[in-house]
Amino acid sequence: MAAAEGQWVLMATGRSPTNIAVIKYWGKRDEALILPVNDSISVTLDPDHLSATTTVAVSPSFPSDRMWLNGKEISLSGGRFQSCLREIRKRARDFEDEKKGINIKREDWEKLHVHIASYNNFPTAAGLASSAAGLACFVFTLGKIMNVKEDYGELSSIARQGSGSACRSIYGGFVKWCMGKKDDGSDSIAVQLADETHWNDLVIIIAVVSSKQKETSSTSGMRDSVETSPLLQYRAQTVVPSRVLKMEEAIKNHDFESFAKLTCADSNQFHAVCLDTSPPIFYMNDTSHRYVLAVHWLGILIISLVEKWNHSEGTPQVAYTFDAGPNAVLIAQNRKTAALLLRKLLYYFPPEDKDLSSYLVGDKSILGDAGLHSIKDVEALPAPPEMKIPDQKFMGDVSYFICIRLGAGPKVVADESQALIDAVTGLPKGL
Amino acid sequence: MAAAEGQWVLMATGRSPTNIAVIKYWGKRDEALILPVNDSISVTLDPDHLSATTTVAVSPSFPSDRMWLNGKEISLSGGRFQSCLREIRKRARDFEDEKKGINIKREDWEKLHVHIASYNNFPTAAGLASSAAGLACFVFTLGKIMNVKEDYGELSSIARQGSGSACRSIYGGFVKWCMGKKDDGSDSIAVQLADETHWNDLVIIIAVVSSKQKETSSTSGMRDSVETSPLLQYRAQTVVPSRVLKMEEAIKNHDFESFAKLTCADSNQFHAVCLDTSPPIFYMNDTSHRYVLAVHWLGILIISLVEKWNHSEGTPQVAYTFDAGPNAVLIAQNRKTAALLLRKLLYYFPPEDKDLSSYLVGDKSILGDAGLHSIKDVEALPAPPEMKIPDQKFMGDVSYFICIRLGAGPKVVADESQALIDAVTGLPKGL
Repeated sequence: MAAAEGQWVLMATGRSPTNIAVIKYWGKRDEALILPVNDSISVTLDPDHLSATTTVAVSPSFPSDRMWLNGKEISLSGGRFQSCLREIRKRARDFEDEKKGINIKREDWEKLHVHIASYNNFPTAAGLASSAAGLACFVFTLGKIMNVKEDYGELSSIARQGSGSACRSIYGGFVKWCMGKKDDGSDSIAVQLADETHWNDLVIIIAVVSSKQKETSSTSGMRDSVETSPLLQYRAQTVVPSRVLKMEEAIKNHDFESFAKLTCADSNQFHAVCLDTSPPIFYMNDTSHRYVLAVHWLGILIISLVEKWNHSEGTPQVAYTFDAGPNAVLIAQNRKTAALLLRKLLYYFPPEDKDLSSYLVGDKSILGDAGLHSIKDVEALPAPPEMKIPDQKFMGDVSYFICIRLGAGPKVVADESQALIDAVTGLPKGL
Repeated sequence: MAAAEGQWVLMATGRSPTNIAVIKYWGKRDEALILPVNDSISVTLDPDHLSATTTVAVSPSFPSDRMWLNGKEISLSGGRFQSCLREIRKRARDFEDEKKGINIKREDWEKLHVHIASYNNFPTAAGLASSAAGLACFVFTLGKIMNVKEDYGELSSIARQGSGSACRSIYGGFVKWCMGKKDDGSDSIAVQLADETHWNDLVIIIAVVSSKQKETSSTSGMRDSVETSPLLQYRAQTVVPSRVLKMEEAIKNHDFESFAKLTCADSNQFHAVCLDTSPPIFYMNDTSHRYVLAVHWLGILIISLVEKWNHSEGTPQVAYTFDAGPNAVLIAQNRKTAALLLRKLLYYFPPEDKDLSSYLVGDKSILGDAGLHSIKDVEALPAPPEMKIPDQKFMGDVSYFICIRLGAGPKVVADESQALIDAVTGLPKGL
């Protein structure tokens, strides 16, 4: 039902980034509140290339809360959305817009319904933490429209209840999710370790394996690990606390060697815990033989390539990290290293069609730095000398690459023309 | 140099089995003495199908110690062979054979040289613990000829110094290698938990991936894990001790459910520790793309198949375990289950050529139990119903299957015609 004629529609639009953990979150100590078994640390990715945009509209004419994701209506009845909505409504404040003649008292928010439209500027199914960006944006934008004054730490704690890692998307740069100790989860919040300008040499290249696959929920996998992996508790209680301290130091000191070693080791340990789970967690369910092999081969090849390259240089050039999804995330020390890395990656994973510029999204200028101006340059790439395996190529295993920098946290989109909801109808534009 | 005319050649021949760990050995606390970081438990495999046979010859005419493996002379100068030779010579006793007119005093053994010929009745390179069988046989047969009277525990401790897991091949049935506490390693010995008749329902099926690959030494991998994996110490100190107790109980009580769960969990945890190693340990070096994929796919498919089958039956039917080599070892509760398992395995991994009987070695009668009398029966096999992945087949990924039972420990081969060395020349037969 659209807004009734003559009634106001109040709107706010926000944009939130996605993030990639360098010290991994795996395992909850409380499923309902989403409280983790260990701290985690992430880098926030540039929202220009990977982000969620969300418009929240409020109108006395809306009979119920509704939500649309990428243009399709989805149910808001899930516990996670409801937790975030409830927690933001609890903190809502008086709001007045004299020009529009809108005056909402704190207690009115309980009765007012919202329409929420959200959109990811990257494929939802690509396994790029779309739920982290989406839930952070949901909470951030709801908070803006409801005039919530709580600090970002408290917002992060609410986003956490929507999707654990969403709490880290509340800030830009380097972010730590402190597991907290309290049973009510109020101290399980994210804090910013450093903003995106602190260490702006880093360049991230993501190999997206396939956008055809559903982003599998990590909830059941985490639960299985907590219940069956003897190594998980040791990791959470003993290994991660010391790694978090070292990672904080590495970030503070721009110490890429430590940063890379910790990132790679923690990615591998996270997958070790998945393997130590009973039954072991693989990328196996309902996928094709070709896909399973492509994912494993990509992982093995990229890990081997990075380890051998780092070893041959004597000091780490690149860090790799793999989430529960299939994509490889590579963090290069600087732009020059990223360009060299791209040459090695494109040697093994050339594009299936000849259009190089659609094969690398994000900061396409890295192609020029890598000396790759056309597909001919890719075809002429030499085999990475540090690799001793046969120099076979794997066309089609990678859907596309993303080149991206660290980025800022959530922002209000002030330009009202960017809103995803029509200010008159109160429904998503284009519906 | 052959035995000089008129001089005697004394010979002994022994045969030793190979073994498969169900609680894994991974990591040494002392590299020189080969002292492990945790206890391990293995099953000994039937030597009729997998074993090493070794003939040791002694003659005053031999100017030096020499050894031949599968007909090719190899160097005996390595520290491991030398340790075993030294330890056995130390314990040598007076020997007399009136008929042959041979009289060797304890102190003479130091001056007498040996010729050793060893032969595996399976491909050395197949990753089937040939070094465990070989070193156990080396020590056992040397001990026999030198009239060593020490008990099997002490023999196992000597075999351990040749190849860690060789100490477990000194017994049949179920064997535990106690890590020991002493710095000199004298209490790091194997003990028999139960002989091969104790639980004789078990049937083992091994999928041999390829016999073209070299058996890679696990020494450097273990060292890397000990030095870099934070999870290894926790596994060794906390997880394994409790698993060993539970495994001993399971074996004692013929409790297949516990046996299978512990076996699978420990195989997966061993591989988790390999992944937690920096750089992570994969089957990657100097192998082809096809081989790497075949090994990973075999592992993923077989683990998934067994986990899903066990889950669908409500109670474990089969346990899987993977060593550092590429082969899959499957332990079935009984012959009926093994036959069902074989049908599932042959559905996915049919033989490349049409000769079924050379595709299954060992106890070929299992083919009849599985209703597989010809290649047509294999081609007509239905897809395993518990698997939801596409029912693709992977011809050529498995070289052959072995069907085998538990077996006895080392034995003297009394039939002198079976000796590998010519009693006149003192050199390997056929040389």
